[in-house]
Formats: sequence, C-alpha cells, structure tokens
Amino acid sequence: MQVTVPMPSSVPPLGASFETELVKAVANITATEDEGLGINHIFGPVLDLGRELRWGRVEEGFGEDAYLSGELGHAFVAGLQQGKRRGAGENASARMAATCKHFAAFGSPQGGLNLAQVSGGERELRTTFLKPFHRACLDSLSIMTAYSSYDGIPAIANTHMLTGILREEWGYKYWVTSDAGSVDLLVTLHGTCDTRECAAKTALENGLSGEMGGGTYTFLTLTDQIKEGKVDVKYLDETVKGLLRAKFALGLFENPYPYEDYTSFIRTPHSREVLHQADLESIVLLENKGGILPLKTGIGSVALIGPQADRVTFGDYVFFNASLNGISPLDGFKQYLNTTSSSTQINFAQGCELWSNDESGIAAAVEAAQSSDVAIVMVGTWSLDQTLLWTPGTNATTGEHVDVHDLALVGAQLKLVQAVKATGKPTVVVFVSGKPVAEPWIQAHADAVVQQFYPGELGGLALAEIIFGAVNPSGKLPVSFPRDVGTTPVFYNYLKGSRPIDAGQVLDNGQLIFGHAYVLDSPVPLWSFGHGLSYTTFNYTDLQISPSTISTTEDFTVTVTVHNTGSVDGKEVVQVYITDVLSSVVTPNQDLVGFQKVNVPAGGSATVSIKVLSSQLAVWSLRNAWVVEPGAFTVKVGTSDQVFAQGTLMVA
Amino acid sequence: MQVTVPMPSSVPPLGASFETELVKAVANITATEDEGLGINHIFGPVLDLGRELRWGRVEEGFGEDAYLSGELGHAFVAGLQQGKRRGAGENASARMAATCKHFAAFGSPQGGLNLAQVSGGERELRTTFLKPFHRACLDSLSIMTAYSSYDGIPAIANTHMLTGILREEWGYKYWVTSDAGSVDLLVTLHGTCDTRECAAKTALENGLSGEMGGGTYTFLTLTDQIKEGKVDVKYLDETVKGLLRAKFALGLFENPYPYEDYTSFIRTPHSREVLHQADLESIVLLENKGGILPLKTGIGSVALIGPQADRVTFGDYVFFNASLNGISPLDGFKQYLNTTSSSTQINFAQGCELWSNDESGIAAAVEAAQSSDVAIVMVGTWSLDQTLLWTPGTNATTGEHVDVHDLALVGAQLKLVQAVKATGKPTVVVFVSGKPVAEPWIQAHADAVVQQFYPGELGGLALAEIIFGAVNPSGKLPVSFPRDVGTTPVFYNYLKGSRPIDAGQVLDNGQLIFGHAYVLDSPVPLWSFGHGLSYTTFNYTDLQISPSTISTTEDFTVTVTVHNTGSVDGKEVVQVYITDVLSSVVTPNQDLVGFQKVNVPAGGSATVSIKVLSSQLAVWSLRNAWVVEPGAFTVKVGTSDQVFAQGTLMVA
Repeated sequence: MQVTVPMPSSVPPLGASFETELVKAVANITATEDEGLGINHIFGPVLDLGRELRWGRVEEGFGEDAYLSGELGHAFVAGLQQGKRRGAGENASARMAATCKHFAAFGSPQGGLNLAQVSGGERELRTTFLKPFHRACLDSLSIMTAYSSYDGIPAIANTHMLTGILREEWGYKYWVTSDAGSVDLLVTLHGTCDTRECAAKTALENGLSGEMGGGTYTFLTLTDQIKEGKVDVKYLDETVKGLLRAKFALGLFENPYPYEDYTSFIRTPHSREVLHQADLESIVLLENKGGILPLKTGIGSVALIGPQADRVTFGDYVFFNASLNGISPLDGFKQYLNTTSSSTQINFAQGCELWSNDESGIAAAVEAAQSSDVAIVMVGTWSLDQTLLWTPGTNATTGEHVDVHDLALVGAQLKLVQAVKATGKPTVVVFVSGKPVAEPWIQAHADAVVQQFYPGELGGLALAEIIFGAVNPSGKLPVSFPRDVGTTPVFYNYLKGSRPIDAGQVLDNGQLIFGHAYVLDSPVPLWSFGHGLSYTTFNYTDLQISPSTISTTEDFTVTVTVHNTGSVDGKEVVQVYITDVLSSVVTPNQDLVGFQKVNVPAGGSATVSIKVLSSQLAVWSLRNAWVVEPGAFTVKVGTSDQVFAQGTLMVA
Repeated sequence: MQVTVPMPSSVPPLGASFETELVKAVANITATEDEGLGINHIFGPVLDLGRELRWGRVEEGFGEDAYLSGELGHAFVAGLQQGKRRGAGENASARMAATCKHFAAFGSPQGGLNLAQVSGGERELRTTFLKPFHRACLDSLSIMTAYSSYDGIPAIANTHMLTGILREEWGYKYWVTSDAGSVDLLVTLHGTCDTRECAAKTALENGLSGEMGGGTYTFLTLTDQIKEGKVDVKYLDETVKGLLRAKFALGLFENPYPYEDYTSFIRTPHSREVLHQADLESIVLLENKGGILPLKTGIGSVALIGPQADRVTFGDYVFFNASLNGISPLDGFKQYLNTTSSSTQINFAQGCELWSNDESGIAAAVEAAQSSDVAIVMVGTWSLDQTLLWTPGTNATTGEHVDVHDLALVGAQLKLVQAVKATGKPTVVVFVSGKPVAEPWIQAHADAVVQQFYPGELGGLALAEIIFGAVNPSGKLPVSFPRDVGTTPVFYNYLKGSRPIDAGQVLDNGQLIFGHAYVLDSPVPLWSFGHGLSYTTFNYTDLQISPSTISTTEDFTVTVTVHNTGSVDGKEVVQVYITDVLSSVVTPNQDLVGFQKVNVPAGGSATVSIKVLSSQLAVWSLRNAWVVEPGAFTVKVGTSDQVFAQGTLMVA
C-alpha cells in the first residue's frame, strides 16, 4: 500500500508529527470536496473531551486527552483552512472556515446527558477544557459556543470565557457563533432570560455575531433593540468585525460562488489513498493472545459473524444515506481476498441485530464458526445519519442527544460472542464503535480484540487488510476503556491520589471476591489511553532528556531509540508522558506531552526525538496564572499504563 | 407509644421543627452517654452530601440536600453541645464538642472513590457544599477537614476555604483539625509537599491545630521548625487560641474527668423512648399497592425472608460488636406479636446471604412464602463495625473506603425477591440499606416497598410496629433512588435544563424500547427526594404566601392546611420548595426551603406555617456575592416530584 503521508525520518517540528500530518491531509481533502460543492464553512473540529463516556457525542471528538485533542485539532484547522478558495483575491488567506467547538467545557455533562450542566472550577477549565482550544483555535475563522452551563453560567453568557479569556487574553479576532437554538436556551433551558430580546442582547454583548438555526431567530430583535437604545451598537460593530474578518480571509467578497465543476473535486484517486490510509492507521489491536492475528495467508475459511459485519456504521454527522457509499467489512473481506486471488472462504452469519435481544440467529452463527477455521465476531455501538437519526421509530446508541446509561453491548451481542467462543474455534472480536465498549468478559476470553472506531468509506477494506496482515496495525487508543459504566470516569490523567485501587471481582462462575475500590469491580480500565498492539514487538533503549536540567522557560527534547524485535516491519507511536513530582496544586498523575509514529523495519531501529515546550510543564497556580515550578519531573516513554523507558528532568 | 418529642401545634421557629427537635434529642442522648463515659469530643455531624451514590460514606450523612443537611446538622450540633459538663465552671458553655465534617466538598468524589478529587467551582461550592456548614457549624466547637482536593487544591491546604471563608468571612473561632493521616497525604497522595515538615507547616498555616491519628505525627516537626524560624509562631498562637476556646467552652480545665457513675447515663428509659421514636419516624413507605400494608391484625402467618431478616445492620462507625445490642427484625416481629398477644405465626427463611450468589436457600424461602399469607423479603446493603470492617476476609458494601460500582442488590438477593413474588403471595420488600438500592424490578413488581436506613438498636421492633400498623409511617426520603448506577446523579435539585427526559426501557421480556435520554433507561428516579407514603391520605388546601410580595431583605411565611382524608391518624411532612423563575445565573430547578412534620387525626386537619428567610432566595452572583434578585419565585408545597399546592412569590 502506498503511504500517502510520508513517515518522518528525523525530528519533526512540534505539531507536525506523522499523525498530525495525516489529520491535516484528511482535513485538506474535506476542504477540497466542500469547496467543490460551494461550501466555505465547516462545523469542525470538535474539541470536547471524551471524559464522560455516557455522552452521545464522544464519537465526534479526538478522545479523552486535552493535549492530543489540541494537536489533532490544530492540524485539522490548518488542513481545512490552508490555501485559498478559487477566485479569491490576493488578500485572502484561507480556503475554508473551520469552526472549533464547543466553547467551552461541553464534554462532561452531568449524568452524560446532552445539554446538562458541567461542574468545574477555573483550574479544571484551564488545565483540561480550554487547552485544546488554545492550541487549535487562535487561527480558526470561527468558534461555536457550547449549550451547557459551567459552574452555573451558560456558555453563551460566560463573559469570563468569551470576553476575558477568548478575546482579551488570547486575542481571538474572528467569528463566534452560538450552537443551534442555544440563544433561545437562555429563556427555555437556563432561566437566565425571560424574553427573546434578553437572550439576543446577552449573546451579542458576549461577542456572538452568529445565531445558528434551530431557534426563533432572536437576533432579529436586535435592530429594534439598538434603535430603542436598549443595546449599544458598539457590540454589534465589534462582533461584525469578527465576522467580516472571517469573510475577508476567505475572499468571499470577490468570488462567492465558484463551484461550476464540483465533480472533479470529489473522490479523487488522491483522496481515496489518504482516506484509506487514515482508516488503516486508526485501527487498534487491543488483544492478540497467542498471536492469532494476522490470519495465515491461505487459511481455508473464516466465519465473519455479527451485526457489524455486513453493515457500514458511520457517526451521526453525515448526510442522508452516506453509509451507502461505504464498504462493509463483508464486502471489504471479499474485495481483499479477490484482489489477492485468495481461496479463503468467507462464511457470513449475522447472528443477531444490534438492537434486539432476539437470539434466534445465534445458531446459524455458531454453525458458521464450527465450519470455519477461525471466527471473527463484529459487534459494537451504532449511529445513524442526520436524517435517519431523528426519524421516529429508529434507534441508535451514539450521536448527538443519544446518551446511554450503560456502556456494555446492547441486546444479544455478548451472547453471540460467547456462543461463538464456546465452539472452541479461535475467536476474534472486532468492536466497531463510536466510544469504548465495556465488556470485561470479551477482554478476558476473546483470542484477539480489534477496535475500529467509526471508519471512513474504506473502513471495511482497511479492516480486512489488518486482519489478514497486509498492513500491520499501529493505532493507539485515544480513550480508555472502562470495565463498566459504574467504574467511570477512567481517563488516564486523573489528579494524583484520585484512584485508589483495591479491586473486587465477580468470577465467571458468579463467585464474589470482595474488595473496597470497588467492592466488586476495579477502577483500572480494560485498556488504557495509548494502548495498542502490533504484529511485531518493540524495545526501547537510549532514553535521553536534553538538556536534563532546564530553566523554567527552556524547552527540552526527549530522544529514544525504538528497536523492532520481531519479524515484520511495524510502526510504533512513541509517547512521552510527564509527571510533576512536586507541585503547589494537585496535578495529574501523568500527562501526555508528545507523540510520534515511526516506521521501524523488522530487526531495525529508529531514533525519535520529541520536543517538549516548557509551557507544557506549567500548572495553573493558586494565583490564577500559568507557572512552571522548579523541581523534578518524571519523563516516561510508554503508554499511560506501561513504562518502556523513564528518566528525570530537573527544572532549576 | 409515647411521643417523647411533642408534635408542634403552631408555627415553630425556623430550625426548630419536629424533625430537628428529634435530631436534637438524639444528639442530646449521645452527649449524655458519652459524657458518662468521660468523652468530651464527638466526631459528628457529617455534612457531606449524598450526591455521588457510589461513595461508601453516603450512609453517614443526612442525604442529598444542602438545606436539609444544614438544618439537621444544626440540630445535631445544638443537641450535642447544649448544657454543661458536670463540674464545669460558670464560664463553660458546652457539654460536648461537636465536630462538623468534612470541610469541605468531600461528598462527590470522582468515580465515587473515597479520597478522590472533587470537581467544582466557587458557585457550586457556595450554593451546595458549604451551605450546611454555614448553617450548622458556626457554634460547633470543632471542624474536621476533608481528605479530597477541590479543583486541584487539597482541603487542608485550601487557604481560600479555611482562612478566607471559614475564619474571616464566617468568623469561626474554634478548633479545626485534619482527618486521620491527611496531613501526610499532602506528601503521599497529593504531591504538594515533599516532606512531613512541609505538610505540617502547610496545615498549621491554614489554621489547623489538630492532627488526627493515622499518620506519622508530622506536627511533632513544628517545634523545630518554629525554633529554626521556618514557621512563624503566630500561626501556632492563632490556632491554639481556637483549641483553647473549645476547651474553655467545655470547662475542661475545671473538672476534666467527672465520669465516676457512667452506668446511670447509659440506656435510660428516656433514651430508649427517644431512640425508639427516631427509628419509627425514619422508616419510609415507598410503595403500597392495593394497600397491602399494614398487615391485618390477626393475620394467620407471615413469611419473614431474606438476609436482613435475622440480622442487625448498623453503619460502620460503631464499636466492636455493637450490633449485638440491636434487635433484629425477626426478634422485633416476635417481640411485637408477643406484646400484642397475637397468634400470627412467623415463618422465617433466610433465603440467601447478602454476599453470595448461592441460590440453594431460595427453595426454603419459597416454601415459607407458600405456607404463609404474606411474604416480607428483607434485603439491602450492609456494613460492619470499625473492628470487623478492616479485618481481612470480611466484606461490606457501605462504609468508609467501601465504594461500589453498582447500586443494585448484590448476589442472589434479587433472585430471592423474584422467586418469592412468583409464588403469587403478596410480597413486601424491605430495604435495609445505608444508601439507595437501584432495583427497578422491585419498584415495578413488589406489592409494597419499605425503606429502613441503617437503624438504631430498636430498628427491628420499629419495623414490626410499622408493618403491623401500630405506627403509621411518616418518613420521607432524604435522597433520591436511581434506576441504575448509570443514571446517576439523580439528586432532585439539578440545575435548570440539566435533565432532558426522553426515556428508553428494557421490558421484563427483554424487549428493547429505544429512547434518547437515556437510550434504554430513564434519568427519572424510582423514588425522588421527599417521597414517602402513609397508611392514610392527605389533601392540601388554602395555600397562603404572606406577604406575597416582599423586598429583597424581607422574610415570608408559607401557610397551608393539611387534611387527613383517610381513616387513620397520620403524620405528614409539609415540604416547601421554591424555584427562582428568572436568575442571573443558572439556579436549581427547585430547592427545599422548609419542612414541618405534623400530626393530623383521621378526618381532621392541621394548618402549618413555615417561615422562609429572604436569604434562602439568594443566588451566588456573577460578582461572587449572595444576592436576592427581584422577580417571581414559584412556591410549591409537595415533594420534589409532586405538587400538592402551588403559588407565586414576588420579590420587588
């Protein structure tokens, strides 16, 4: 397979790692396709953090980590905006307006319920929720506010965030808009306005110059309010400036409708290659007991089982019937085997529906497994496109306003997996899901587990290539997988001391083993942030931290050599985590500060250097300022739950 | 039964309702017994709010509501402290030192894990976590700090809370101590100190003049630190003043050890009456379909089933083998039937253990049910006394450092209930539990459900008296019962707009009915705060709000007439809730502002007046101050999920 985004061979600049280049390339294709269709404004990236896993919109973001979300978000904004629209004048500077959303602190709603309030203080706001926006959005031509309230203040009325931080502290100068109908929510949801006029005034005075659809067009009241002197026209002038800056940057006044030949923009050979690669890079191998994967070339037969096997599952923000353009895993397997002239037979059986307890199809699935050399069972969560998702009578388990109380598989899916495994055939479970699935039985008993988050159109083909070993998997988890909804949150960078571990357990035979935290379960995730296996093995040596002692304003570089100790080529994501050993406020037990995917040939090695900025060491102090505090920092290369190499950085 | 605390016949003063008088009476007995034993300092009341139900210590507090906890906490402090110790001089003002704990924001730890961080900002701190302390603790001779961090600041290092709010703003002048070992936690848990010296210095400088056991006696380092000029002696002087004030208030320098005749202080006839009454008043009748309860006098036989039937379950902060002094439900039923010369036969069968999936005892329980006229199945959570709780090999589901990931019944308990119900015999389920049990099947299918939170020594007898109708139940829930751990939190006073309801459902036959919030469940609790049935029925009329328009500094009175429309005498808790219709910040959808239990004879009525202070209407404003904002307030008399009478208050 052609690697469209070249793998780095030396130290990349911060924020220009392989992963961010790939995201940028995907965003670039998105901009190209949209430009062809006459679209000049995209409502992404989503920088809400996936830390409350019941929330339906976890599928839309970059995972649980603020740093990762900021880096990928930054790349997405850059990829969308870089270049110029056709026909734009010489002063234009962007091809497409990105929209960072949702500003801010939307991703941890109480109870996981969309629109619900978020609890938090200034320190959590700064160190967690705002970080990705600060990294990714200063050049984004627009920002969309959140629906929720944070410590009792609705996002669109939060003068501290919108004026104090975004405009004054960060100097953000472009367009800020509400989310759909959220200006009305000041009246209907939050009770902080009694009239549409009040809501419009509040939003405008907080710098919002856009009111998305879904509401009652409250901004239409502003003309009269300004005429009557109830709203100072300066707010209108100021916010219109931001809107006009975005439009001038796009060159919209020069050639607003340049889309006469859109077909040449859509589904080009280049875009297919990049999107194919993105689908391959994002598959995560979670378990591979006894090296059951990849399947042997020439294996006689494979049972492809489960409700996700002959189905294309995308996230919810896709157009009507978008999934008809996708390749299902069943089609992908057939394509792959056909292309490679393989004689391997595929025995398909759906087994059950995603949304039903009906077990009548399990017998056929068991039969398919029994008559095959290996069984692959595909289960997970699902969403629907924007038309279907809101059609009465349909159902989904992820998507906006689709919040779950349980993270286990729905309906008969687990029973299907258990019945197939009971045949004694090697059983590979593939989760296609928009968020972590909490099924400890599968982690304990499946021979292999593969995670495919909602893919692009080529997802089914990419999965086949991974399963059969044409491509070695190299994805890492951007989000931790809990054992149960009752053991959430499980994000890896909890504040020090916040996760006592004294686990209990329920054995498969039902026997209860009592602990204290939790009495009958464990707060340790099934798979933690950063985890992901390969078909080869890696060893890390020669960790260097340079300089090993820095001043509070000095950056440093972490260098390490990765050895491929297996027999096939592989890619590895080198991940750097730091722990602030002593701090004036309670800091996370660890935080990701850098990552870099590299190619390492079998038997070979690669030396990777990752630059870390001193600002990444800062705490939000008791005096409400970013401060890098002298002292020791532990520098770890590994994953959030594994140490491959470790050293100490001193800040003098 | 003699009512030891007289029921009010007219408007009581604020904070002196029947319920608070009863709590005061219980605290008074506690003080008397402790004084007899030479104890002069009690580590209660616990004012942490039960809003994160996985937390093991929910059993220790007064429930989910800040106002209720403040009122009951205030009564508890007053009851403990009122009077003088024997032999204390004329300047002594207190008999016993109460300890309000844990200051502050301890009750909502992340993941429900004891010691874990708490997320929140200044508004949530003021309006929720601090409220009960402000109400209850200004005269408490001591306060104990929390273990946790709040927005990244450890409780014992939180200068804003300990100095800014507690000492300066509230003028608190007595003793503040750490919780066990928590000074060391700055080093071992929070990473904000690297030495014991630093930890001791931090605690002292934040006004702590006590270091509880469980740590390494870091305060012993203070002598040297002061000598060496590393700690300013003024901090020591200042905090010792608080400690000495408490000791002088107790008169400890005059007659420190007056306990020569303790036996006359313990288990007096008076204390038995009060504690008996407390046990009766706190039982809550949750469901009573078809009026199955009370059991008919002279009923032939009752099956008393379940692992809580022949067991005394107390909370964890009781001494070794304290439960040996309690009357189990089985003993209570026998005593009651014996006392009333009843011929009703009790058929006891344990059915299962609390802590096992072993179903082998269920057959005998089914047999007991089949051979009886009615079945009572007693299930729930359990704790152990302080010695047993920490003995290796024992188990519990509530208590300090006993945190659960699931709120359903453990082991075979639900199956036992279902098997008994399947006999067709009327089935009463009694929960004996230190926190809400989440079992929607029981709510849907049991003929009656009774909640007994961990009782006192006479709990088993009180339960029998309620079940047989000798006493009409009048308890109301201080905490809401969720359908599942995945639908938490379920506290009633969520901020406006935070609980969208678009419920899904799993039918008993397994069929899935899809919704959105949640996809397959509901955020609506099984039973909500304030709920509690009676053997009679009540009707409310003549609501008056007086004055109906007030200034921002004016108090008002809510008056309503309660009619007993049934055929037996009953007590009713009149509950007043307000909603701030329009506010500058997002306020709760409703908040309890007053309550009063009254006796209403069958066919009779009682008029109840409840005074509400204007300060109870205040919001914590955007300018960080308490402000009563003009506008309309909805005044509801009812429970958190029912409206019995409603009106409007205008603040001009």
